[in-house]
Amino acid sequence: MRRILLVFALALVWIHAGLTAPAQPANPDEAAIRAAITAQTEAWNRADIPAFMQAYEDSPDTTFIGLTLRKGFAPISERYRQSYTNREQMGTLTFKELDIRLLPCTCGKTEFAVVTGKFHLDRTTHGDAAKDDGIFSLLWRKGPKGWKIVLDHTS
Amino acid sequence: MRRILLVFALALVWIHAGLTAPAQPANPDEAAIRAAITAQTEAWNRADIPAFMQAYEDSPDTTFIGLTLRKGFAPISERYRQSYTNREQMGTLTFKELDIRLLPCTCGKTEFAVVTGKFHLDRTTHGDAAKDDGIFSLLWRKGPKGWKIVLDHTS
Repeated sequence: MRRILLVFALALVWIHAGLTAPAQPANPDEAAIRAAITAQTEAWNRADIPAFMQAYEDSPDTTFIGLTLRKGFAPISERYRQSYTNREQMGTLTFKELDIRLLPCTCGKTEFAVVTGKFHLDRTTHGDAAKDDGIFSLLWRKGPKGWKIVLDHTS
Repeated sequence: MRRILLVFALALVWIHAGLTAPAQPANPDEAAIRAAITAQTEAWNRADIPAFMQAYEDSPDTTFIGLTLRKGFAPISERYRQSYTNREQMGTLTFKELDIRLLPCTCGKTEFAVVTGKFHLDRTTHGDAAKDDGIFSLLWRKGPKGWKIVLDHTS
């Protein structure tokens, strides 16, 4: 009888855990990357390119691939400023199908992550940048300033 | 006089080293990735897709982004087979502007690397895959089977 009660109690605990736990366990690295993406989206939607650029690693090696390859935080920043000259051209940015893959090193540290997804720009006017929809892959690295993008390939 | 001879001898050693050393010091990880890319190109040019696929990590998480995103070694392999059905459609593959960036973890291990570059296919017939030229970014990871591609974004 005690055995049956124990099994019943364990079953209740198990059901309760299943009902109250979030759908996905909140990994702190994944949460930090999601927060950086949210901050980046909000910066875009208030046409604040310097704040938007905070998601990128401030390094001459940071790489953006669009129609061509651009290397360096400053050239990438400049390209955004030239391609989107006002708030109307920037429009409203949304992401979908976001997939975050943490890539731990065999030493146990998690300092790299790949994010893939699709973007959509809801806008009425265009500057140099013609695309309103696209697919992207980002390589993020965790450094002294947190998670930052070291490679952005958008097509 | 002995001092002058010593300086002269050291200068000769220095000049000799400068003349015989390669332009860039051969990092073993960079050399291994270059070798994998060369093997991959050779496999393509003899229309051997299974050998070409050896450069990719055999994992359900391996990701290829072309016009759409495909996840998994088997679906990526299948996509190559469907898009390139014979040797003529595969043609001759060449890479240019190859850039290899090793990304060491702060623990000291180098297990990730980004490779960017452009490809060209020299061919006379086309199957499903229309592009003869494009730009790509690859994320490589060093695992038990050596350096393998975990993400390929080609546009």
